[in-house]
Amino acid sequence: MTGADAEQREKGSTFLPRFDDKGLITAIAVDSLSREILMVAFMNQEAIDQTRETGLAHFYSRSRGRQWMKGETSGHVLRVQEIRVDCDQDAVVMIVTPAGPACHTGAVSCFYRKLEGDGLVPVA
Amino acid sequence: MTGADAEQREKGSTFLPRFDDKGLITAIAVDSLSREILMVAFMNQEAIDQTRETGLAHFYSRSRGRQWMKGETSGHVLRVQEIRVDCDQDAVVMIVTPAGPACHTGAVSCFYRKLEGDGLVPVA
Repeated sequence: MTGADAEQREKGSTFLPRFDDKGLITAIAVDSLSREILMVAFMNQEAIDQTRETGLAHFYSRSRGRQWMKGETSGHVLRVQEIRVDCDQDAVVMIVTPAGPACHTGAVSCFYRKLEGDGLVPVA
Repeated sequence: MTGADAEQREKGSTFLPRFDDKGLITAIAVDSLSREILMVAFMNQEAIDQTRETGLAHFYSRSRGRQWMKGETSGHVLRVQEIRVDCDQDAVVMIVTPAGPACHTGAVSCFYRKLEGDGLVPVA
C-alpha cells in the first residue's frame, strides 16, 4: 500500500475494502442490544454485497470454500443494523439483531469460554 | 478437521488454537469498561505466548511480516484482563484496558466510520 492509498483508506469517505491475498476481510458480529461479540468470520466481495443488499449477514467460509448466509440452515439469521469499517479497511464490525443463538453449538455467542491458567473455563 | 478434533475444540477445556495456513488466528481487543471493539488483528503462537506472559497484547503483522506489541512505539499498550476463545478456537477476544487511543490515527477505536449509502461517515 502506498502512502496515498493508506491515507485515502484511513481518512476518506469511500468504502475501499482491503482484501487479503485470498480476497477476504475480517467480519465481526456484535449484538445491537447487549453489545456482546457474537461471532467472527470472513467476507469476500460477494458476501459484502449480499449482506448490504439483503440486510442479512453473509460470510465466506474458508473451510467449506464457499459463501454462506448465517442462519441458512438454522434460521438464526443476523439482521444487520450498521456496518463499521476500521482504519485500513481490512475489517468490519456489524451491529446485528440475532434471530437466535449465534453459535452453531447453541450458545448465544461463539466466545463462551475463557483462558484460565493453562485451560479453558466457561465465561461466567 | 475430523469430527473428534472438532468436538474436542468446541467442548473441551484445552486451549488448542486452530491456526490458519499462515499460522495465525484472529484477535479482537475490546475495552473492559466501554465494551467497545478497539481493534482487530492477528496473532501467531509467539504473540499468544508473549501476551499471556506479559499481560500486554501482542500481535503478528501480516504487512510487516513480524510480531509486534501494541504500543511499542506509541506507549498505548493494551493491558489484557481476560482472553475468550471461540467455538472452533480460530479467534480470541481480549478484554483490555487501553493506555491511550487504540488506533494509530489517534481515534479511541479503529472502527470510527460506518457505511452509509455508498460511502463512509463518522460513527456518531
